[in-house]
Amino acid sequence: MTAATPSFSFTVLDRDPRSRARTGRVVTSHGAIETPAFMPVGTQATVKTLLPEEVGATGARVLLCNTYHLMLRPGPEILREAGGLHRFMGWDGPILTDSGGFQVFSLANTRRIDEGGVRFRSHVDGSAHDLSPERAMALQVGFGSDIVMALDHVVGLPAAGADIRLATERTHRWLDRCIVAFAAEGGPGRGAALFGICQGGMDPGLRRQSAQFIASRELAGSAIGGLSVGETKDEMLSMIEVTVPHLPADRPRYLMGVGSPEDLWNGVARGVDLFDCVLPTRLARNAALFTPDGRINMKGARWRDVHAPVDDTCDCRACARFTAAYLHHLFRTGEILGMRLASEHNLRFLARQMERMREAIRAGTFDDAHARFAARYRPVGAPSVAGEEAVA
Amino acid sequence: MTAATPSFSFTVLDRDPRSRARTGRVVTSHGAIETPAFMPVGTQATVKTLLPEEVGATGARVLLCNTYHLMLRPGPEILREAGGLHRFMGWDGPILTDSGGFQVFSLANTRRIDEGGVRFRSHVDGSAHDLSPERAMALQVGFGSDIVMALDHVVGLPAAGADIRLATERTHRWLDRCIVAFAAEGGPGRGAALFGICQGGMDPGLRRQSAQFIASRELAGSAIGGLSVGETKDEMLSMIEVTVPHLPADRPRYLMGVGSPEDLWNGVARGVDLFDCVLPTRLARNAALFTPDGRINMKGARWRDVHAPVDDTCDCRACARFTAAYLHHLFRTGEILGMRLASEHNLRFLARQMERMREAIRAGTFDDAHARFAARYRPVGAPSVAGEEAVA
Repeated sequence: MTAATPSFSFTVLDRDPRSRARTGRVVTSHGAIETPAFMPVGTQATVKTLLPEEVGATGARVLLCNTYHLMLRPGPEILREAGGLHRFMGWDGPILTDSGGFQVFSLANTRRIDEGGVRFRSHVDGSAHDLSPERAMALQVGFGSDIVMALDHVVGLPAAGADIRLATERTHRWLDRCIVAFAAEGGPGRGAALFGICQGGMDPGLRRQSAQFIASRELAGSAIGGLSVGETKDEMLSMIEVTVPHLPADRPRYLMGVGSPEDLWNGVARGVDLFDCVLPTRLARNAALFTPDGRINMKGARWRDVHAPVDDTCDCRACARFTAAYLHHLFRTGEILGMRLASEHNLRFLARQMERMREAIRAGTFDDAHARFAARYRPVGAPSVAGEEAVA
Repeated sequence: MTAATPSFSFTVLDRDPRSRARTGRVVTSHGAIETPAFMPVGTQATVKTLLPEEVGATGARVLLCNTYHLMLRPGPEILREAGGLHRFMGWDGPILTDSGGFQVFSLANTRRIDEGGVRFRSHVDGSAHDLSPERAMALQVGFGSDIVMALDHVVGLPAAGADIRLATERTHRWLDRCIVAFAAEGGPGRGAALFGICQGGMDPGLRRQSAQFIASRELAGSAIGGLSVGETKDEMLSMIEVTVPHLPADRPRYLMGVGSPEDLWNGVARGVDLFDCVLPTRLARNAALFTPDGRINMKGARWRDVHAPVDDTCDCRACARFTAAYLHHLFRTGEILGMRLASEHNLRFLARQMERMREAIRAGTFDDAHARFAARYRPVGAPSVAGEEAVA
């Protein structure tokens, strides 16, 4: 029923002997992606505040765009007339589109969901729209996406066990409809590759079943959905650990919606190849910048007279060309240039983490690199170390 | 009492035989400016949404920054520690700073003005500050400005004739204090040049007297202040016409706060060399773009499916790389990239107007070029031509 996508491939290159970490290369019809990789999010056909070449200059090789937003604005007709999403937004590299499901469940008004799909009203203008497995495939293939995500049924937390089971089983039935529809839309011939999504809430048994279901179907890659939705870090890592062993080793594994530096290291250690998250760019617009020691708030008075780069180990434009005092000034005065520079910085920070991980895996030193990162980087919410000044 | 600034010069290069239009070259310690020229405004040490090199790429060679804003944030101490305004904001070209007077009169709270100067409270945090001729010079020379503006006493419109006379005469007394203070601060030795500002409201006699007063002092340039503040276009042009003949021909003439395309052409025809205005960047952030036919509103539904550049005669990044449909989408979805691209476009549009003017003056065809511009460009508020579709 399905056909492999001729222009898509995934090759595992190096394996870490002491963890599930690995390097690989995803090849798409718009170029290659060295994994593990982080995908910046271009929700509405733009990574907020940045030009495509600026995103590329941070080291990012693949973007995620949101089908829910794009189906509402500019809409599939405009994207088709424009010659596809790549040409519309001026990004020549690979694009992964999500299925729209997550946003329908989190943003849209008056949803009505049944086995057929979801009927919802736009959060923008209240207009009525449908999303079904078939429609999700038609939209994404129509956009010209390189990686197309199956439509899954997401349930918010907390949820009853029975609800999670029903949603997970529906996600499996929808996956089979996606596989049929993806082929019917000519996805493989148009260079698109289809990824399935496993669900299962925080139930290890359901997670395992869902991973096994995904593995049983002919798909280009495996996504882990329904995590980073409010559970603890330990719960999330535990769910990754029960899922990954049941996913095919020869397909890329994509952990959806995860983007804090510590989660990227922990995810890679557990066998994840791809990540996406709005976190780096959303934080940047709110003056929060990643540094090797943890996040800092550029609005803080301590940066007022720091006439040196925010991070002198960073090669991004903000750090190479401007001082912390200038960035502080831009944020204190509400200037958009501050958001731009911070967005470049945070994306570059994450891309450098991925570069360090790939290098360490290649060199067989991933454990050491991870330990060095963890010894220095203090995650938000981590207890402060006695005698050590808080980063603020 | 004053000393000429060794690093500053102005040379008139070409004169239009049928108008007062002329080309020239202003040389500063941070490079040369071909005139007539438009100066983008970098209010708070950034041209809103843009990097310095992006502003330079539009063709701009000199920026205006606002002393009022900079004295409040980041403040003169931070700018001194940073090595001056140029280094702080990363702009290597010439910078003109205004005196702060205009913003004190329009933005600050609880002003108290007397012969000594102005005491006011910051619009940001209510803190108390003083601005006097001496303080205005110390601030601007301390910033490292290339062109320093004298402090003038601005009166809002409408104003009684007696008030305008008193303010104009005070402006003259303050100018003499500025000249003394500018020298005492070592302005000339630090590469700064001082411009005087003539006032006079809408009173031709006062305007003439004020121009003559400015001309009688040893100054690097002459500014025309107190225009573009709500008067009609005819009043403004008439005031320029009575002022310019009394200003020295061998000093650059700067019309403050003017930046619509039609006003630039009309000002140059009347002998103006320099202009500044927030208009192009402010309009851009509100989705209004200059085109050869007039301003357009990118949010308008007519652009939704225009898969072609906004202006195919324009070489800016927005027009060279993106379509009107994409810009429309960015503005409809509130994406900052739209403001950036529109800001570059509007600054490039004005820079191209200045280029056309300089070329036409050189070639002796300024009248023709002005007529061609005016025949096509429809200013905002101009009556629509019967049978012609409105630009919207």
